[in-house]
Amino acid sequence: MGNCLVAQSGGPTAVINASLAGVIRANQLNPLYQRVLGGIHGIEGVLAGSLYDLTEVPGDELEILKQTPSSALGTCRYKLKRGQDADFTRLLEVMDEHDVDTFFYIGGNDSMDTVDALSEWAAAAGSSKRFIGIPKTVDNDLVPPDHCPGFPSAAKLANLVCHATKLDYDAYTRPEVFVLETMGRDAGWLAASCCLSGDVDLLVLPEISFQRDEFLACVQQKMDDQGSCYIVVSEGARYADGTYLSAGESANDGFAHAVLGGAALTLKQMIVDAGIAPRGVVQDLSRAARSSNFAQSKVDVTEAYELGLTAHMRSADPAFTAQVVGVKRGRTNAGAYNAEYFAGPAAEFANYVKAFPEDWIRPGYLGVTEEALDYFRPLVAGEPAIIYGSDGMPKTVKPYNLR
Amino acid sequence: MGNCLVAQSGGPTAVINASLAGVIRANQLNPLYQRVLGGIHGIEGVLAGSLYDLTEVPGDELEILKQTPSSALGTCRYKLKRGQDADFTRLLEVMDEHDVDTFFYIGGNDSMDTVDALSEWAAAAGSSKRFIGIPKTVDNDLVPPDHCPGFPSAAKLANLVCHATKLDYDAYTRPEVFVLETMGRDAGWLAASCCLSGDVDLLVLPEISFQRDEFLACVQQKMDDQGSCYIVVSEGARYADGTYLSAGESANDGFAHAVLGGAALTLKQMIVDAGIAPRGVVQDLSRAARSSNFAQSKVDVTEAYELGLTAHMRSADPAFTAQVVGVKRGRTNAGAYNAEYFAGPAAEFANYVKAFPEDWIRPGYLGVTEEALDYFRPLVAGEPAIIYGSDGMPKTVKPYNLR
Repeated sequence: MGNCLVAQSGGPTAVINASLAGVIRANQLNPLYQRVLGGIHGIEGVLAGSLYDLTEVPGDELEILKQTPSSALGTCRYKLKRGQDADFTRLLEVMDEHDVDTFFYIGGNDSMDTVDALSEWAAAAGSSKRFIGIPKTVDNDLVPPDHCPGFPSAAKLANLVCHATKLDYDAYTRPEVFVLETMGRDAGWLAASCCLSGDVDLLVLPEISFQRDEFLACVQQKMDDQGSCYIVVSEGARYADGTYLSAGESANDGFAHAVLGGAALTLKQMIVDAGIAPRGVVQDLSRAARSSNFAQSKVDVTEAYELGLTAHMRSADPAFTAQVVGVKRGRTNAGAYNAEYFAGPAAEFANYVKAFPEDWIRPGYLGVTEEALDYFRPLVAGEPAIIYGSDGMPKTVKPYNLR
Repeated sequence: MGNCLVAQSGGPTAVINASLAGVIRANQLNPLYQRVLGGIHGIEGVLAGSLYDLTEVPGDELEILKQTPSSALGTCRYKLKRGQDADFTRLLEVMDEHDVDTFFYIGGNDSMDTVDALSEWAAAAGSSKRFIGIPKTVDNDLVPPDHCPGFPSAAKLANLVCHATKLDYDAYTRPEVFVLETMGRDAGWLAASCCLSGDVDLLVLPEISFQRDEFLACVQQKMDDQGSCYIVVSEGARYADGTYLSAGESANDGFAHAVLGGAALTLKQMIVDAGIAPRGVVQDLSRAARSSNFAQSKVDVTEAYELGLTAHMRSADPAFTAQVVGVKRGRTNAGAYNAEYFAGPAAEFANYVKAFPEDWIRPGYLGVTEEALDYFRPLVAGEPAIIYGSDGMPKTVKPYNLR
């Protein structure tokens, strides 16, 4: 009986640790592997042989791990690329050294591509080592699943902040606009979800080419009609030529993705410069949106945990490799939302971006359709029972990468 | 039996509506006044005769009002100034028209000054009308009370976001700094409270003149020692000459206060420009900090509500005017925190700013002393039982200014 390895990659989420807890717990319920080893800082730490034994994490710590935001093993933005044979060889060496035959990788599009590339490489090298993906991304932009763990909690937090800041904005009489910015580089799911709150006047998504004059006319209309305008913008909003609204402030992260920020500030300034409102307030959700521990969606925690369970359980089949697990939307007998689990080829999860559907977008920046709201509603419903410390704060585990 | 008037002013908080609920409930328990009339948009709406009858708001709505953030009556930034006789005369007219003999004003320093000025003016005019203040401010800078309603919840949210974003920051290996910005124009209470989380490496407060070179040396030291540096800065942080760190971006609000924002961005840029870290992440709590409904402190909600109760109850004494109610820190028999209520002259609450004590500040931007943490701890402990809707969101009342 060999060991398994589990690691986390990409941007943290509110529930990525619940998937980790699922893998650990599944192996306690059915010890398919002798040890469950955590790779510290994703593939970067694994290449360096930096592992942490998670096999016997006790049940009460697992419950707290499920409600701990961010990536408890640490994360990385290092991407294994096809052709980097030295990295591939080194990875298999580390796995051999630690008697690891199965690697669970929790991450987004890029990490699912890593799962695919590693599986291919291992097969070509005649190795029996297996690579299995567990998805996460607050961007919700993976193609096969109905939605991605991390997104529902991010949507819940975005809605909470949206409603609270709308109430704050509504308390004033002075003319000003409010602009809330959410994450969402290539897809507007998170920004669009804010419409659930019923508070969004205008919505600016990456899926629709931004047109300055049309947008400003819409803002003017709202100010004329109601004396206020609450706007939500996705960080990835862009002009027809692909230039981001936030273009002035872009930098670069390790994956050669543009690092965005400032779309809300740009819109506010545009509105003030056009003389439509003398001032505006900007709220950028930034990092707080993706890894909060005070707005977890119960559905999200449960699904993230069960995706960890199902990935481990399906790996009992020795042929289970190059696969990623995911959630489909099913129905209960009473017609309510019901999560169903499936697995599919990693290649289908990798390198595609699922845009927010154009036919769910109302014209004139007027938000989303009822169909879109029906999609979002069950994802944010319900509250997990949080375990608090005596200090009144939700308990969190000390990250394994810092132990 | 006459009526009473209650209104809200200044920046909204997470619990200012709990004080409103307290006044309404107290009058249901002991009808000292025939009607409880809400002034819409503070003194501005009252001058316009815009009132809303709150006398019979049912108990279940009051419970939801207590957990509704922002100012349910609407707010204003209009300040009644001594010498503006037309306003004073008009206000007494409106009160006469609606048979109001007592005015409860819930607000910060400026509103408490309004209470004082109105009381003086009424006395001089031979009027028996009474003016009573109920304090609120997330800035926590009123002098007589131990702390101000609104601050503990803002501190709780700031700590939650601080800890969550610290976990997110800690998940990475790449060298960067993190800078969290909180509200706090003249006093650093809110920024200082973040030290409760145990996550703050460096703290920049308005109380200590900012010294660029010394600060950068401290950041360099942290980066050298631990490869990371988590910084919290108060929006009001300033140089010895009084220039705000955020000076480039200041505007003006209706009270001739500088509108701040951008201190965190300034610090990040300063650190990057100095070559200490190649990049940094900025999180500005902005409006989300002050009127959230997902991080109320139980102590805060209870005290805000009871301040509403005590203000109403004390007003049974016809001589009770020009007074503001407040919270003192007492001890239970077991030595635990215990809120005690008092009332004092409005003049003592108005126009003074209680700075964060310098002897609670550790040198070298190293946060606060244990004594400071002991002050903060009981304020954020405990969680109120939130009433959720079927959509999974905390229920809120529809603002009275929008009905």
